[in-house]
Amino acid sequence: MKFCSLCGAGVRFEIPTGDNRPRYLCSSCDTIHYQNPNIIAGCLPVYQDQILLCKRAIEPRHGLWTLPAGFMENGETTREAAIRETREEACAEVELQQLYTLTSIPHINQVQMIYLARLPSPLFAAGDETLEAGLFSEADIPWDQLAFQTIRNALRFYFADRKQGVFPLHHVDLAPPERRDS
Amino acid sequence: MKFCSLCGAGVRFEIPTGDNRPRYLCSSCDTIHYQNPNIIAGCLPVYQDQILLCKRAIEPRHGLWTLPAGFMENGETTREAAIRETREEACAEVELQQLYTLTSIPHINQVQMIYLARLPSPLFAAGDETLEAGLFSEADIPWDQLAFQTIRNALRFYFADRKQGVFPLHHVDLAPPERRDS
Repeated sequence: MKFCSLCGAGVRFEIPTGDNRPRYLCSSCDTIHYQNPNIIAGCLPVYQDQILLCKRAIEPRHGLWTLPAGFMENGETTREAAIRETREEACAEVELQQLYTLTSIPHINQVQMIYLARLPSPLFAAGDETLEAGLFSEADIPWDQLAFQTIRNALRFYFADRKQGVFPLHHVDLAPPERRDS
Repeated sequence: MKFCSLCGAGVRFEIPTGDNRPRYLCSSCDTIHYQNPNIIAGCLPVYQDQILLCKRAIEPRHGLWTLPAGFMENGETTREAAIRETREEACAEVELQQLYTLTSIPHINQVQMIYLARLPSPLFAAGDETLEAGLFSEADIPWDQLAFQTIRNALRFYFADRKQGVFPLHHVDLAPPERRDS
């Protein structure tokens, strides 16, 4: 950030009076431009014993598989965001169930929320940001072709929890890749 | 938003190619300036049978009581944000427990997360944004002097759940005040 988005003057990066961390401060109109984490909302859609995955048509991780998820927009709830992303990426209408994973990813300023969801019928297709959508049984999950650690985690949690028949919220704080065990 | 924060040129508000909702678009460098919901993180600190509340020294709702909570910052986890806000607003060191309320407030583009927390000893004080901090038993909660509906909800949930001895996650989508039942 170099310019004030309200008045167009230059900004400084310094600690405002009464604050304790540096912010972008307008040199002319004194507006403080805060920057805060974004929410990614999505779901783990289940049809019978299979999971709906999407092969990404966009960067990052073009060509790798993911669960339908994306940036929550202003004016919607986390559940609405998860349903909308599933509609956009997989052309599928899901019935959301409970919040299943909540992951903070502080090195990229994101918080990711994945809901369990029921896909009532095997109706889906590739949306604009998807090369291909498909249903995968546990044995067929492309573990070495998954786009993100959070997606790998959600799928691991799911197959483990399914054996127990209970699906608690998994609350994870994710370290940067170089500091991760797996 | 009137100016591009990267190059200082004017912005247009229109739907970018391949998108489905209007964004602020730079007329010169073509940067798309997304605007997304913010996360508020905080906790419900419990000491014996009492709850720690803070009387707000800032707007909005100056002079009303709240749980320690505030905007999550870049570079931290939701749990770190809840602990930091409690330290800043109530000068208290809490031991966080489970996520207790998750509330989408789409009309103000916020998602609020309140954790249950243990206050190990009655050590607290008013932080810079707090006029006064205090421990309240259920009978003494200032119900008509609470700052926010989300805080009222969290306290109601807590006292009801405490009678049952179970504290499940409460996932709430909050309508604007004029469309609320209470």
